[in-house]
Amino acid sequence: MTETIVKPFNLDFDLITGLSESKDTTKRPLSKMKGMYADELAFEAAVQNEDPLVYEFYELDLPQTPGDLLFGTSILYPGKVGDEYYMTKGHFHTILETGEVYYCLSGKGAMLMENPEGDWDIQYFSPGKAVYVPPRYAHRNINLGNEPLVTFFAFRADAGHDYGTIETKGYRKLVVERDGKPEVIDNPNWKE
Amino acid sequence: MTETIVKPFNLDFDLITGLSESKDTTKRPLSKMKGMYADELAFEAAVQNEDPLVYEFYELDLPQTPGDLLFGTSILYPGKVGDEYYMTKGHFHTILETGEVYYCLSGKGAMLMENPEGDWDIQYFSPGKAVYVPPRYAHRNINLGNEPLVTFFAFRADAGHDYGTIETKGYRKLVVERDGKPEVIDNPNWKE
Repeated sequence: MTETIVKPFNLDFDLITGLSESKDTTKRPLSKMKGMYADELAFEAAVQNEDPLVYEFYELDLPQTPGDLLFGTSILYPGKVGDEYYMTKGHFHTILETGEVYYCLSGKGAMLMENPEGDWDIQYFSPGKAVYVPPRYAHRNINLGNEPLVTFFAFRADAGHDYGTIETKGYRKLVVERDGKPEVIDNPNWKE
Repeated sequence: MTETIVKPFNLDFDLITGLSESKDTTKRPLSKMKGMYADELAFEAAVQNEDPLVYEFYELDLPQTPGDLLFGTSILYPGKVGDEYYMTKGHFHTILETGEVYYCLSGKGAMLMENPEGDWDIQYFSPGKAVYVPPRYAHRNINLGNEPLVTFFAFRADAGHDYGTIETKGYRKLVVERDGKPEVIDNPNWKE
């Protein structure tokens, strides 16, 4: 096994927009989220119309060791599909026993979490609010405001992303707009 | 062994001052840093005079597992002892193979790093700059400006802090003011 030595480095992330001048983001247009929003007609119409960019984030190219950390910003745009707020795909970590921290730089939103044991939780983001995602919790950002929701995140470099479980089973809960306000409801399509 | 289940939670850290309204800081007055500044006369005079608060930071009470993360802010005040800028004690992680990330919220400064193999490095902080401290590197914040240097940090919850090595051997390098500007010099008191 060859060992890669990581040297100290720095990277810029604007404190409001989250954007870096020295790196490109990974982009998730709506078309990459098929099956994740409850209102499939609204989803198809939005994809046909302009396929909006829902979120983007930074991915570091570091060795995926248990001692390194990956970090960056996530920028989730405001919008809705039907009455469901724009959100990230959400994922478990492949190494389920690893947590993650998100620190909100700007915008308004929430982190929706659930673990395989059936516990779920929602924590709200506003500028200056850090949310801790403990080990075992799938986590998804949701934008509840009119501005981009920008967070700085850090997690163990070997944690890995398991998107498949969420893609197959969905989330237990959805966050939708009711009378102009966010409401957490059961996901009618959730599979045990 | 009893297992502690960590539930999701949030915590506020002001994006400029770094201060939380819901938690107290751990405080490091200058008197707790005996032997760490090169100019011992200036050190003793400052401690006798008012023993200024040099820095403060947040410590979370989470289980120290390899899957959890500890995070918070560090607030390092501006000032000098002789011609040496205010700095944190600096530490290795007890589990040497664990890294740490610092994201600068406000102020101006640097992260001075060295590993047991003799490599050293300095990375500069300004608002929006993230600095990665790779595994094996001792790390110390240094305030090079006129405002508090505020950083948001995250590291593995079981990493641990080894302050003793730095307290005994010192750092290989010092950062001092020369003609109004920071300069990195060899530490005359460093012990191999």
